[in-house]
Amino acid sequence: MTTSTLAWQHANDSTELRPVAIERRSLRADDIAVQVAFCGVCHSDLHAIHGATPHMSDGGGLVPGHEFTGTVTAVGTAVTRFAAGDPVAVGTLVDSCGECAMCRVGQENFCQLGPVSTYGGRDRVDGTVTKGGYSREYVLRERFAYRLPASLDPAAAAPLMCAGITMWEPLQAAGVGRGSRVAIAGLGGLGHLGVKLAAALGAEVTVLSRTSDKADDALALGAEDFLLTTDDDRLRPARGRFDLILDTIAADHDLSPLLRLLALDGTLSVVGNPLMSGPRILELTAGRKKLTSNGTGGTKGTSAMLAFCAEHGITADIEVLPSARVNEALTRLEKGDVRYRFVLDMSDLADLES
Amino acid sequence: MTTSTLAWQHANDSTELRPVAIERRSLRADDIAVQVAFCGVCHSDLHAIHGATPHMSDGGGLVPGHEFTGTVTAVGTAVTRFAAGDPVAVGTLVDSCGECAMCRVGQENFCQLGPVSTYGGRDRVDGTVTKGGYSREYVLRERFAYRLPASLDPAAAAPLMCAGITMWEPLQAAGVGRGSRVAIAGLGGLGHLGVKLAAALGAEVTVLSRTSDKADDALALGAEDFLLTTDDDRLRPARGRFDLILDTIAADHDLSPLLRLLALDGTLSVVGNPLMSGPRILELTAGRKKLTSNGTGGTKGTSAMLAFCAEHGITADIEVLPSARVNEALTRLEKGDVRYRFVLDMSDLADLES
Repeated sequence: MTTSTLAWQHANDSTELRPVAIERRSLRADDIAVQVAFCGVCHSDLHAIHGATPHMSDGGGLVPGHEFTGTVTAVGTAVTRFAAGDPVAVGTLVDSCGECAMCRVGQENFCQLGPVSTYGGRDRVDGTVTKGGYSREYVLRERFAYRLPASLDPAAAAPLMCAGITMWEPLQAAGVGRGSRVAIAGLGGLGHLGVKLAAALGAEVTVLSRTSDKADDALALGAEDFLLTTDDDRLRPARGRFDLILDTIAADHDLSPLLRLLALDGTLSVVGNPLMSGPRILELTAGRKKLTSNGTGGTKGTSAMLAFCAEHGITADIEVLPSARVNEALTRLEKGDVRYRFVLDMSDLADLES
Repeated sequence: MTTSTLAWQHANDSTELRPVAIERRSLRADDIAVQVAFCGVCHSDLHAIHGATPHMSDGGGLVPGHEFTGTVTAVGTAVTRFAAGDPVAVGTLVDSCGECAMCRVGQENFCQLGPVSTYGGRDRVDGTVTKGGYSREYVLRERFAYRLPASLDPAAAAPLMCAGITMWEPLQAAGVGRGSRVAIAGLGGLGHLGVKLAAALGAEVTVLSRTSDKADDALALGAEDFLLTTDDDRLRPARGRFDLILDTIAADHDLSPLLRLLALDGTLSVVGNPLMSGPRILELTAGRKKLTSNGTGGTKGTSAMLAFCAEHGITADIEVLPSARVNEALTRLEKGDVRYRFVLDMSDLADLES
């Protein structure tokens, strides 16, 4: 027996999302049901809507949304970690094989059989296509839900579940801590959380941007320096400065100017646009520079990130819109017109339902 | 007052090297004069002769050779580390600014003003073009000469100075030690030293090769496993296995099959062909894989590598030819017909001189 719930769904004849009744499965033993309170609007949602990234659809269209917070409304018979009423957060994954080497170390995002994405994925049990958090209800295995720390605002915490972990992972992989020199290229949904996390980890943070209009924000977010990437003269003294550059720029761009800013054994982590081609090997040679990338994260990293954010009071800077304005949010996101993440308040779906 | 010495020089009208009298500068205060005993034949020499890599020429043609051993014959007035009669080794660099951040940490190979290459470089004092070790005498700053450990055969040790340090650097940068899983792609001048060094560091070493004819050699050199890269079935179980892959393949090739073999946070170090393009970023995403490269090394790494080789009795597997057969060596190297490094015995130049 399934449950019907309202969701914002993409139809194939338009890029607009429309409210549609969808079904959520009845709870399996290790499932929880979540009433979604807030869902962040991620750049990936735009890519998915525009068909730029692969995702599955069962013909019923796409329901985006993979960073949301809400409240547990019911639990399966074998659920041990949650009870009805618990505040939870859910990210980009809702299942994985649980047995491969990557799952065993809590990096389910690299599951060797392929993890199940929160939307556009294929359920491992019944084969249906997953539908995302732009909806009033969600059902998932408890293993992929996280207790939302009480100190974090549920709306502003939602973007931690994709944007936050996407920044946390490369900071951890590079061992960033006190005294590390970190640059964040691009100050958007990802980048602004990158600045906050890196600064809280003790790093000296510099924001690299093509435009000066976010310079004040950069410093307010915790950066110590702001460099215009259009300004060759200011970039020259910064050559060889950074241990890690997190490149969050979504548009195609030349990686060479960023590589020149890396210190010996420094790392350029390209997370904003994984579809780009890498540079010539030669550009990595002088200084043993490293080029890398990462997806979001697994349960281990996501739990650690949430605990760190609770300890340091870190959430996203957001603009909350009622979910009925989702199309406006997507249009403005595409233009870069948001500081720094849209979050949809899903409570208006209750009115639509009635 | 300069000294005349014989050298094997490349003339512009032919790819053949011919014996020519060249001049070596009179000793500056911190210079030493070295009688070259043995000089390795490096793939870079081929590239330089064929004009594939930039090097300077003062019109007098190119004298290759940047991995050699010999004996100090005279020292400048301020030299403190060497005396006439000392056995020495010289690598790819003969000078650098000495003051930049890279020089200060002993990574003169990344000197921010550009290090001076052993051949085809521009001397920092008199502006002349440096001429390499395919010659009977060499003059250089003592700072860039190394004492040759007495336990190492002078002929077989010569290739350590380029091929050896080129393998040592990425092994050190990746922190390879006991239990590390290292693969060496391509078993040639670089690769065979990569196997020896990685095995002596305690790593589990696998050789990756397109042909099976070097399988026995791989195991004899210290590898525990040998995988044919043409054999998809054998490569599949090796996916995700290696912490570090040293890619020493000189020909253009697809990096994707190698990237698939990397473990979580594993590193692919491409040192055999820096002119290739990197893969799409997406190929690095799953597993946070790192792509890197490196040149040779500076004084700090080279000294450490020589000490390690002396301790573990590591030298190259070589075929020694009289220097008069240099053109034969180059032709056979181009065909891959050497196990595993040609070394020229320069003593025959004494007969040519007389």
